[in-house]
Amino acid sequence: MSNIRHALNIKRQDDFAQWYQEVISAADMAEESGVRGCMVIKPWGYGIWERMQRLLDDRIKAAGIQNAYFPIFIPLKNFEREADHVEGFAKEMAVVTHHRLIADREGGLVPDPEAKLEEPLVVRPTSETIIGDAMSRWVQSWRDLPLKLNQWANVVRWEMRTRMFLRTSEFLWQEGHTAHANADEAREEAMRALEMYRAFAEEDVAMPVIAGEKPENERFPGATETWSIEAMMQDGKALQAGTSHYLGTSFADASDIRYQDAEGGQQLCHTVSWGMSTRMVGGLIMTHGDDDGLRVPPKLAPHQVVILPMLRDKPEDAALIDYCEQLRAALAEKWTLGEPIRVLLDTRPGKAAAKRWDYVRKGAPIIIEVGGRDMDNGVVSLLRRDSLWNSENGKPAFHTPSRKEAAEQIPAMLEDIQSSLFASAKDRRDANITRGITEMDALAEHFRGSRYPGWVEVEWSKPTGESLEKVVEQLKAHKLTFRNVAIDAEPVSGTCIFTGEPAKERIYVARAY
Amino acid sequence: MSNIRHALNIKRQDDFAQWYQEVISAADMAEESGVRGCMVIKPWGYGIWERMQRLLDDRIKAAGIQNAYFPIFIPLKNFEREADHVEGFAKEMAVVTHHRLIADREGGLVPDPEAKLEEPLVVRPTSETIIGDAMSRWVQSWRDLPLKLNQWANVVRWEMRTRMFLRTSEFLWQEGHTAHANADEAREEAMRALEMYRAFAEEDVAMPVIAGEKPENERFPGATETWSIEAMMQDGKALQAGTSHYLGTSFADASDIRYQDAEGGQQLCHTVSWGMSTRMVGGLIMTHGDDDGLRVPPKLAPHQVVILPMLRDKPEDAALIDYCEQLRAALAEKWTLGEPIRVLLDTRPGKAAAKRWDYVRKGAPIIIEVGGRDMDNGVVSLLRRDSLWNSENGKPAFHTPSRKEAAEQIPAMLEDIQSSLFASAKDRRDANITRGITEMDALAEHFRGSRYPGWVEVEWSKPTGESLEKVVEQLKAHKLTFRNVAIDAEPVSGTCIFTGEPAKERIYVARAY
Repeated sequence: MSNIRHALNIKRQDDFAQWYQEVISAADMAEESGVRGCMVIKPWGYGIWERMQRLLDDRIKAAGIQNAYFPIFIPLKNFEREADHVEGFAKEMAVVTHHRLIADREGGLVPDPEAKLEEPLVVRPTSETIIGDAMSRWVQSWRDLPLKLNQWANVVRWEMRTRMFLRTSEFLWQEGHTAHANADEAREEAMRALEMYRAFAEEDVAMPVIAGEKPENERFPGATETWSIEAMMQDGKALQAGTSHYLGTSFADASDIRYQDAEGGQQLCHTVSWGMSTRMVGGLIMTHGDDDGLRVPPKLAPHQVVILPMLRDKPEDAALIDYCEQLRAALAEKWTLGEPIRVLLDTRPGKAAAKRWDYVRKGAPIIIEVGGRDMDNGVVSLLRRDSLWNSENGKPAFHTPSRKEAAEQIPAMLEDIQSSLFASAKDRRDANITRGITEMDALAEHFRGSRYPGWVEVEWSKPTGESLEKVVEQLKAHKLTFRNVAIDAEPVSGTCIFTGEPAKERIYVARAY
Repeated sequence: MSNIRHALNIKRQDDFAQWYQEVISAADMAEESGVRGCMVIKPWGYGIWERMQRLLDDRIKAAGIQNAYFPIFIPLKNFEREADHVEGFAKEMAVVTHHRLIADREGGLVPDPEAKLEEPLVVRPTSETIIGDAMSRWVQSWRDLPLKLNQWANVVRWEMRTRMFLRTSEFLWQEGHTAHANADEAREEAMRALEMYRAFAEEDVAMPVIAGEKPENERFPGATETWSIEAMMQDGKALQAGTSHYLGTSFADASDIRYQDAEGGQQLCHTVSWGMSTRMVGGLIMTHGDDDGLRVPPKLAPHQVVILPMLRDKPEDAALIDYCEQLRAALAEKWTLGEPIRVLLDTRPGKAAAKRWDYVRKGAPIIIEVGGRDMDNGVVSLLRRDSLWNSENGKPAFHTPSRKEAAEQIPAMLEDIQSSLFASAKDRRDANITRGITEMDALAEHFRGSRYPGWVEVEWSKPTGESLEKVVEQLKAHKLTFRNVAIDAEPVSGTCIFTGEPAKERIYVARAY
């Protein structure tokens, strides 16, 4: 296949990080804004995020969770209440200190010293403490529980080294916050959210994930337990793509979220939070992108089918557009993957071949070109983005069904693209998980010796406190991190690779974003 | 009807401002957050906003506008570029000056002096200048035009006197931003957005509005022309519920948005912006609320039909729930007003009568109670929120269709509620517009003499500059403001009520929110 001329300049295997940037630019998804650490999400990238929002929001609502909205500003005193929480976030918060600008002597603008806030406000990095305030007002008795809320919002965590979608100072996310009468119900909700993320990632994003518990050192600041879904990117690194936290009673204690139980006693609530962000868009790119750009799973594609008439700026164009419009209309009436097909007929000026490559780079699942000859023959020229090339001749693998056949076949074809993207990502992921390494030296060698070492699942004794810190330092020396302990992991049989003690569970080790 | 015991404590006619607050609280829509000027939007209020978003977003997308997302932080220097714009906003901006907190000597948190930003950032009050930066990168040639963007976002304008939904420091909105090759196309887009808002307000929110041009003194800071939709609240005051601005080339000049025309020359773009916010929720309350709480038009109701089985915590409940569930399922399959019916079967513990009044106060369009006797008779007890009372006996006006009839009639009933809410709001609005006042004294007397004077449409000579300022001061003395000049106003025939010069157009004068 060396004679294929791919649509990108940089190949994944040559420089994965540069390739990632090129996909974002070539697919017109986002760009640097000029504002420190903040990106502009361009229409194609934002369209994918809107699709993610819609599908995840449907799952959130189906679980009986109610959307609400809480202030972007959080008073400093809220953070002072939960020591671990502030320790985890204080270093990266945007702080509002003034509420007015005035002109300085040079005619520029400066914060007005007369308008200094008595208490500075923090731009939310996460909303446990401000939603906790509301929960403490809303929860009085056991009848008010469980209280299940979610918000779609922007949050800010000041980042020194940023990377589009993966790590930006401002990002978009949803954060679920629930309060429960006891630990069991709270844990059940944390696990429900984890399973919701797994299903969303695998069924909608077509991204295979491991759902499991994070080790102590990777917990959310202030949490009792943190669970995550972890996905393998094409460079073998791990991406944490969604988290769910059982917060115990520590946030309830800090925010005074109490309820009167059926016997009249006062009890602290057990709280839970869970979040998924625009980081998932970065995960999508690194899961499904190829050397021709992005490939968007049909469930997330703003346009699932793009029709490109080969216009020549001549009177004959009208008939060609009409021919294409009939296909568009026929497809728009059909459903696939639970929704009406999203089809775009692109009649903007410009060469069809140039547009074809634009949509290849953007990753539209099906691209249809129609020229005069196609119309005369009653056919269309159809490209499947998930199998773009004819490996025999190195050219784009056009199919030429009749227009009627195309309309009939496309719903199933989109379903097939959705499942084949998942299957190929899962095959790759599974092929790059190594098991059976039982010595630390061998583990280090595995990651040293291979360019794409993937993940290793090892048996460990689940040390805590200082013992755990030592192990984490050991891993850090090899740029390795713990990912999670899969909820469906095999039972252990041996000794801990780090401590030599009897193993308690299996944990994934990997390089990570 | 004096024997009716209404669900609220405060009646509109007794204290409209207090009544407004009571509706928000009784319908569980929002509350003070404890953070200065910011509110918490509770699930019922947010659910209505989500419905507004969905319906307006559909209209935005149908017009070929693309959603995107731009940074919440705007560098100070962006504001310095457009003098009128900064003059209009500098007095009410939240300013970020630090990116880290540290512990002070008392164990509290303070902004870290070491982490002071070199250039402060402003939390966006509106995004013309930051989107202008992007437009200047994205627009090169005439082929890139028109460029049509929209963003759904939170914005902050520091407000000293706040009022939930109507005026809060943080609010949610959409802001459309478009760039065009010439003034005609830009004005056309501004008018398209105005018409979109009119249609959204009247067809979706069931709120009659006057679409028209704002006078010079009411223009958006930096705009060449500002257009608005104005709605009359039940106290006769005006609410500006959406605006559209033709910005001329001033923002393009400030942000350097230029294009190469077909002849190779460099031209400035003409830009447009338009916005609608959570203020619309306040408008909905003051348009459709009554002395029993909110009434939500079916198109915006999170639940259009609420079914309340009269549970008694006994084994018979199962049959009753099953009876109700069959109605729920039958309704959920039906469509009305272009979408599937949104129906809730509420089986939470609690008395059905108490829940009935909760949903009356929330304004669910149709409330259905089902007791054992209803089930035995094969009927349901149905309340229409828009005609709640039997005026003869002062009791709730229950209808008792058979369950089958209910399922059949409800789609049309919801359509009827949607249109009758609009019709009654329009009748009220039209009845409270006065025309024919030709003397300033008579105008002042009209507003002085009546508790609900509504609006007055007067003929005026459209003065500008200082002449206009004098007129505005004159009105201000009577707490009056100009609203807008209707796009479909009658031609003028007389002299200006303010200047005595020949009239040029008709303009609305009113008290306003």
